[in-house]
Amino acid sequence: MFKQTLRLLQKSVKSSSGRVASVTPAYKNMLRDPSTKYAAFKGVSLPDRTWPSKSITKAPRWLSTDLRDGNQALPDPMSVEEKKEYFHKLIEIGFKEIEVSFPSASQTDFDFTRYAVENAPEDVSIQVLTQSREPLVRRTVESVKGAKKATIHTYLATSDVFRDVVFNMSKEDAIAKAIETTKLVKSLTKDDPEMQETEWTLEFSPECFSDTPTEFAVEICEAVKNVWEPTVENPIIFNLPATVEVASPNVYADQIEYFCKHISEREKVCVSLHAHNDRGCGVAASELGLLAGGDRVEGCLFGNGERTGNVDLITVALNMYTDGISPELDFSEIEQLIDVSERCNKIQVHPRAPYSGSLVVCAFSGSHQDAIKKGFSKAEERAAKGDTKWAIPYLPLDPQDIGRSYEAVIRVNSQSGKGGAAWVILRTLGLDLPRQLQVAFSSIVQQQADSLGRELKAEEINELFKKEYCSTSAISLRDFEITKRKDASEKNDREIFAVIQHGYQRANIKGHGNGPISAFIDAINNKFGVVFEVVNYSEHSVGQGTHTKAATYVELSYVNSKNEVVKKWGCGINTDVSQASMEAILSVVNSLVDSKEISI
Amino acid sequence: MFKQTLRLLQKSVKSSSGRVASVTPAYKNMLRDPSTKYAAFKGVSLPDRTWPSKSITKAPRWLSTDLRDGNQALPDPMSVEEKKEYFHKLIEIGFKEIEVSFPSASQTDFDFTRYAVENAPEDVSIQVLTQSREPLVRRTVESVKGAKKATIHTYLATSDVFRDVVFNMSKEDAIAKAIETTKLVKSLTKDDPEMQETEWTLEFSPECFSDTPTEFAVEICEAVKNVWEPTVENPIIFNLPATVEVASPNVYADQIEYFCKHISEREKVCVSLHAHNDRGCGVAASELGLLAGGDRVEGCLFGNGERTGNVDLITVALNMYTDGISPELDFSEIEQLIDVSERCNKIQVHPRAPYSGSLVVCAFSGSHQDAIKKGFSKAEERAAKGDTKWAIPYLPLDPQDIGRSYEAVIRVNSQSGKGGAAWVILRTLGLDLPRQLQVAFSSIVQQQADSLGRELKAEEINELFKKEYCSTSAISLRDFEITKRKDASEKNDREIFAVIQHGYQRANIKGHGNGPISAFIDAINNKFGVVFEVVNYSEHSVGQGTHTKAATYVELSYVNSKNEVVKKWGCGINTDVSQASMEAILSVVNSLVDSKEISI
Repeated sequence: MFKQTLRLLQKSVKSSSGRVASVTPAYKNMLRDPSTKYAAFKGVSLPDRTWPSKSITKAPRWLSTDLRDGNQALPDPMSVEEKKEYFHKLIEIGFKEIEVSFPSASQTDFDFTRYAVENAPEDVSIQVLTQSREPLVRRTVESVKGAKKATIHTYLATSDVFRDVVFNMSKEDAIAKAIETTKLVKSLTKDDPEMQETEWTLEFSPECFSDTPTEFAVEICEAVKNVWEPTVENPIIFNLPATVEVASPNVYADQIEYFCKHISEREKVCVSLHAHNDRGCGVAASELGLLAGGDRVEGCLFGNGERTGNVDLITVALNMYTDGISPELDFSEIEQLIDVSERCNKIQVHPRAPYSGSLVVCAFSGSHQDAIKKGFSKAEERAAKGDTKWAIPYLPLDPQDIGRSYEAVIRVNSQSGKGGAAWVILRTLGLDLPRQLQVAFSSIVQQQADSLGRELKAEEINELFKKEYCSTSAISLRDFEITKRKDASEKNDREIFAVIQHGYQRANIKGHGNGPISAFIDAINNKFGVVFEVVNYSEHSVGQGTHTKAATYVELSYVNSKNEVVKKWGCGINTDVSQASMEAILSVVNSLVDSKEISI
Repeated sequence: MFKQTLRLLQKSVKSSSGRVASVTPAYKNMLRDPSTKYAAFKGVSLPDRTWPSKSITKAPRWLSTDLRDGNQALPDPMSVEEKKEYFHKLIEIGFKEIEVSFPSASQTDFDFTRYAVENAPEDVSIQVLTQSREPLVRRTVESVKGAKKATIHTYLATSDVFRDVVFNMSKEDAIAKAIETTKLVKSLTKDDPEMQETEWTLEFSPECFSDTPTEFAVEICEAVKNVWEPTVENPIIFNLPATVEVASPNVYADQIEYFCKHISEREKVCVSLHAHNDRGCGVAASELGLLAGGDRVEGCLFGNGERTGNVDLITVALNMYTDGISPELDFSEIEQLIDVSERCNKIQVHPRAPYSGSLVVCAFSGSHQDAIKKGFSKAEERAAKGDTKWAIPYLPLDPQDIGRSYEAVIRVNSQSGKGGAAWVILRTLGLDLPRQLQVAFSSIVQQQADSLGRELKAEEINELFKKEYCSTSAISLRDFEITKRKDASEKNDREIFAVIQHGYQRANIKGHGNGPISAFIDAINNKFGVVFEVVNYSEHSVGQGTHTKAATYVELSYVNSKNEVVKKWGCGINTDVSQASMEAILSVVNSLVDSKEISI
């Protein structure tokens, strides 16, 4: 049987040098222009299709096959303990149908099935997969004995390549085999008087449906349905798998709509979609398949499964969510789920995976960050008017809906603009920087990110901000008193007495002006023989109630020794708004001392 | 401007305990049933759509935006050296249009643009993105001065949410702005007598198209086209981005077909698709968009880009490949490309990424492995008859077409059947095991994988095989001679004299039979007082020419002390077929000695 394979393969076996040796001449020809060795897949003809005009209006039935199709595709399959943890997590999410194993394949799978049967809530159906061979079917039925609800899942090769290449079976053989297996399952389950405590469902998969002449898929399913005799209350499940994705998703949708139109007693049939992702279109195939009449979606969390994976159920479900439809699955704690999946499957969730990836709710570029900031601002205005629809630019889903905070929404690197760093300062320190201060700070941040060649963390941005605008490096304020000048006829009617500290030395300074800021500037100017002027000033409150503080932003100008006008921002935060301003002013002084613009 | 945002956000800032504090009451209401805060996207109405009946028949124009849209979304953006390496790799793949930067954003981007202009082959168009502001447009045009071919890419907010929330611009304002910018670009490029050495193209993006009333997108593009005055030879590019993917891909296809039907002078327009992947349908959107009339696909390698990424160009291109269409891009060395991308982007390619992931050309489950083996066998038969179409179950693409070997196709863990381990032995040792030996070996492999709880490497499987079936642990063959018995009238006319070694001892043994195998068995039985019988025997050649060896497989039966029949396989490989058989027999003897079934 393998002789020819051997000859073929020996010629492409890696030589000891590690180089792949050339293949047979026939194959060599193919390699010259590889596209010529493939043929486009021809789908079913359906010019009167209706699915492209439809919308999804309700949640489908869901089947998780994480523990079967997902697990069988892991380099390091789950241990029994990990399977148990995963099983309970699936129930927590809200799955009512869970394919737990291939029980006839090993004792481990059989034993785990017993665990699932014994630990499933009453409304959860335990599904098990079996080949269409009598001893395996018997063993499979035995594995779910006593379940409240159980689904026996049989499959059979129906596509040309599978029937010919793998099983050497004619279409007639396949139908006969399907009938025989269905009769056997029926006799062992719903027709067995001793097995009546279980609600039995049959799932049948023509494999691989996507590659099977659709007319034949209908024909074999009709034969199975006639034997099984499903009811409207407990329909038979016909799973129509894209075991391998062989065409674009509209072709799959045509096949599904064709099947739905041609299968008889449609009301007694649940059409199940089972998309793999070989062409990167598993989500699209499932969604278009639902438009085309699918009732149920099979898949895995985070798109685990053979090769490119089964369809990612999280994406399909959360897409519905943002369409205003409840998927009836709970993904409100996605981080926890990522943790379970990465631990049990030993495969990382990709940072760009829809919804679950670490980079998908974050913006680095300046214009995106700006738009998001403005979006949040508008959202608050709209919410105040009772319009609570979600409409934030670049954020199709509210991160809080999947248990994420807004912390990660904006991240800062050398590509980011003023909005990014300002957002981080707002989110972490509660400081709402004036626009000009944002511009000034942004160039400092960009320089730092550029020189490090990487993203800056929030703490690093905070440190940069404090160092630059809240400096206490040289001089700090110890005490102050502001009084009304006795001679109140003067315009400058405020007088300040302050104690500042410089190293171990303290000094009393004195000045006056029309308010605490101008008075303090006057005192500083007097003390150090400089001429500061206030260019910009703003303040806002931080926090609420007794914890409220004032944040003040002061921009001072100063003419340096080269006769250049130097401008510099400072920031102060204090429960006393006057003290906050003075701290902001001292920060500017300290910066200029540090940069040797002035000496004290 | 940020006051309201601040109030909104302060309430959800992380408290010092790390817990996310609750948000405003309006938001709290939303959180109760989050699906109610989203609304389904309403696409354009197109009941007479034609795209679902179409097929892709030729490669589109491709634009790589790896260096712009991709790079701006990296936590750690590329260094200039990395951008250069990436740029040359893109040219090597065959991209003729490359968006290299946002040159007005920074000196680094400007300088890199100059590098690209100076190092691009003549047939490669350098594309640069700019905001619609005069000084930025001027700087952008300056950055590509002297290029053989250059594309200036301008964009403007056209969707309701972008116009209202971000730019506060009416539709009329937007059209006026678009006209003004187009006039400016035109005057600086193709209308400037000093800029005639460059072939100038304009790309205009209504942002974000997918969320813009399609009629308005047509309207603003008409206005831009009227100013630019494109030709059939050098059409204007209208990029229709799904900047954020807001609906299922059939809705995007409807929008594209609507646009293509309604834009005037269609022959002077290149419709460019730019899909992001927020709903996991970027590939589908690009493919259905091509069916709907798109001429050009924009994206990044491995789906890099903002949030969930731009569409993965590798998947779109290789999907065409397996449809029998040459994408006119060369991905024949995918491993090298993965290396460049992972190094420069510092983001790993996911093991399940279509075509490029490490797990996508491999099967762990027994039934899949079996089917693949049979598929290769049939392929050789078909190739001999001149049918070289690719049709291997579970392998939509020949791994060799992207520079991968067949080594990785089958990997073995506890979920694998007999086919998996047999494949590894065939591929690495060149041994084509008989079916029953496959079954026996498979249970040993499964046991080992189960007890280690992980995948077994090829070397580990080889070691297991050699230990189990090529054992020289106790006795080895030193020499032998086979002669014809003098009394040739007997049926048993072969006589063997052999020297075996056991530890430091050598022994001469002697036996006879009708061939070398039966004679050697007889000698062994005589020597050790046991009764071995041959149950199965097969052999095949390994290698070619003077290096050809014989591989022999012998199954012996033996009745042990408990009166049980024990069966055991052995394997021998030697240039001398007789010696190979004897080594196979000795391996069985050695195994039984090791397991104390017999003592010597």
